[in-house]
Amino acid sequence: MVTEIALVLVGDELLSGRTRDVNLQRFSRVLADWGLPVTSASVVRDIPLEISISIRNSLSKNTAVIVTGGMGPTEDDLTVAALATAFNLDLIRSSLAEDMIRTKQHEYGLGLPESALKQADIPEGALPVMNPVGIAPGIVLPVSGSFVICMPGVPSESAALLEPCLRVAGIEPMQGKQIRFVRTWGLKENNLFDSLKSLSLKNKVIPAFLPSPGRVDIKVSGAGANGFSHDVIEKLGNRVYTTERDETLEEVIGKKLIESGLSLATAESCTGGSISRGITAVPGASRWFVGGVVSYSNEIKMQILGVKKQTLEEYGAVSEQTALEMARGVRRITGADFSLAVTGIAGPDGGTEEKPVGTVWTAVCSDKVEKAHLWRLGGDRESIRDGASARALGTLFELLQ
Amino acid sequence: MVTEIALVLVGDELLSGRTRDVNLQRFSRVLADWGLPVTSASVVRDIPLEISISIRNSLSKNTAVIVTGGMGPTEDDLTVAALATAFNLDLIRSSLAEDMIRTKQHEYGLGLPESALKQADIPEGALPVMNPVGIAPGIVLPVSGSFVICMPGVPSESAALLEPCLRVAGIEPMQGKQIRFVRTWGLKENNLFDSLKSLSLKNKVIPAFLPSPGRVDIKVSGAGANGFSHDVIEKLGNRVYTTERDETLEEVIGKKLIESGLSLATAESCTGGSISRGITAVPGASRWFVGGVVSYSNEIKMQILGVKKQTLEEYGAVSEQTALEMARGVRRITGADFSLAVTGIAGPDGGTEEKPVGTVWTAVCSDKVEKAHLWRLGGDRESIRDGASARALGTLFELLQ
Repeated sequence: MVTEIALVLVGDELLSGRTRDVNLQRFSRVLADWGLPVTSASVVRDIPLEISISIRNSLSKNTAVIVTGGMGPTEDDLTVAALATAFNLDLIRSSLAEDMIRTKQHEYGLGLPESALKQADIPEGALPVMNPVGIAPGIVLPVSGSFVICMPGVPSESAALLEPCLRVAGIEPMQGKQIRFVRTWGLKENNLFDSLKSLSLKNKVIPAFLPSPGRVDIKVSGAGANGFSHDVIEKLGNRVYTTERDETLEEVIGKKLIESGLSLATAESCTGGSISRGITAVPGASRWFVGGVVSYSNEIKMQILGVKKQTLEEYGAVSEQTALEMARGVRRITGADFSLAVTGIAGPDGGTEEKPVGTVWTAVCSDKVEKAHLWRLGGDRESIRDGASARALGTLFELLQ
Repeated sequence: MVTEIALVLVGDELLSGRTRDVNLQRFSRVLADWGLPVTSASVVRDIPLEISISIRNSLSKNTAVIVTGGMGPTEDDLTVAALATAFNLDLIRSSLAEDMIRTKQHEYGLGLPESALKQADIPEGALPVMNPVGIAPGIVLPVSGSFVICMPGVPSESAALLEPCLRVAGIEPMQGKQIRFVRTWGLKENNLFDSLKSLSLKNKVIPAFLPSPGRVDIKVSGAGANGFSHDVIEKLGNRVYTTERDETLEEVIGKKLIESGLSLATAESCTGGSISRGITAVPGASRWFVGGVVSYSNEIKMQILGVKKQTLEEYGAVSEQTALEMARGVRRITGADFSLAVTGIAGPDGGTEEKPVGTVWTAVCSDKVEKAHLWRLGGDRESIRDGASARALGTLFELLQ
């Protein structure tokens, strides 16, 4: 019985460094919710033998294989042929797959070239699955008491095809076992690990720490999971923003603002728009986010946000005073109820002894309250920018509590 | 003789979906420049046997293995022990590694707990490599006429350790073979593939197409590479922004503006700050980028950018007129020489029959010229936002030519 999934990601572009794979992360989350954890992943080139070997090596009675990539109409698209070879099957023109392709080509106003119909040749015994957002059907091949699913690597297509293919393979979503998540902001992984040691022992759990810049997720399972997560929340307070596994800090802030009918504006310097981008990644953000200013230069800080020249001269662009004036300014010009501001030194240049790379001031502001924080962040430019974004959002979350 | 690299990425968080791996893409690029292409990658859990097996299966006389992750001081960090087990070696306390750890702990103002010193136990015969930006040393183990390198998975640390470890392993950077890159914007991969077929045949090359939202990179190698890339540039014109493999559209635009001493401001609606974030990811962007406005709501479009209420009522927020007024407005309030603006429907909601999801207007503006473009983009919310960002930048690139 299939209890696990192995992923095989096909594509030269994934190994040449040109393309960043997003399927691994997305699939892992969805499949965990379906009770089918991903236990391994392989990345292989567009070479049929390597694809075949990887599929064969990954498949077992307990482990089904999902393959992404190499499903298009070009000569580089070799996954389906490799799948057939892996199990010594013939490729057969499927009239069902052909209909699916015709339908999508027609929908997109495209003709029906020979190359498109190549995608209707599938291994004997395989079932095609209609692709909601592209041409190439997904393929489900029952084999050896298990199954292999193949789908295009294009993220929007693989995301849309995953669940239909699993259902065709006979899989239904399952209730997750007792797992608890505690999602935190602004704490460093190693500090967190050390500070939660005694609570781990007390509750007899082994938590997993899953870091990203400015955020650490803690995942625990088993009998002590509930108790541990309660203890952690009590200990960490407002550094915990949610216990929902997929709820982001941006979403949590959005819900709070929607509930209270309040709005937010942002003023960013070194983060350059990362915060507003993250906020607007959430569908429906327009219900609470009005917009912001990326005041990258001092002139813009002064001209648009009204930061005083004196302030910049006396305290510098990266200072508590400038951060507060940026936050006040964007609130004023947008009329938003809340605002946040970030100004800092992302590096690699620009650091001084007094203010080294990683020095960041954040500020949050409402009509009643103003708070500023100084942070000293590590890592490279992108880590500092993302870490600063998370901390600015976190201080707003604190204010909203 | 080692001619290829296999990557082994260790970490439950990579397979649970919590963390997105960035090492694969970064390493693939650097290693290709060193003449050592990455030919496979595996992602495994923090389970010693799985790590050991993956390392053993990947290693050969020709294929060296680089392992990232699982190098920290916690109980979940099992890579070094797994490496020792894989080759039946003892773990030995290395005084050199211990010195490295002491030095870094001191530099970061940390104590020297027992857990930190665990990282000084390395397989017999392995060489420690000082970690410039973290605590755990890298490890280089010569074995079976090949080698295994292990380093922390944290991206800033792995990026800093890669080259020092390769050098300790006896590898020197090599001159790349005849490879040409043509990086394009705003063209769809399948259209590009079809339209370049005859040039491929003419030059006797098999180009690889490496897409990301709004951008497609074309890579060719061999004798016909030069001729092909010239032909492609002639055919595609301003849709080609560079032939340098790692030069981004943002960097190209930045260089042009720096050369001419001109500046840029941005006005974003649906892209929410993605464009300014991409621009400011480039160190030194302050030399040509002054900042921008994220005018997510219509009120902000009117209040800050001066878009006319009439315009919004008559043509709507997603229209040529609104895009042009946004671009003009941000130029006016910032004093920048050039500006670009984007307004569109990123989805999944908000589409109508007249303006379906994916409808995007971009505009670019200088004191002399104004141009607006209508795009119909596909994919999910993030694809549409990133695709819109690339096209806005591309139309600015065109204007700057």
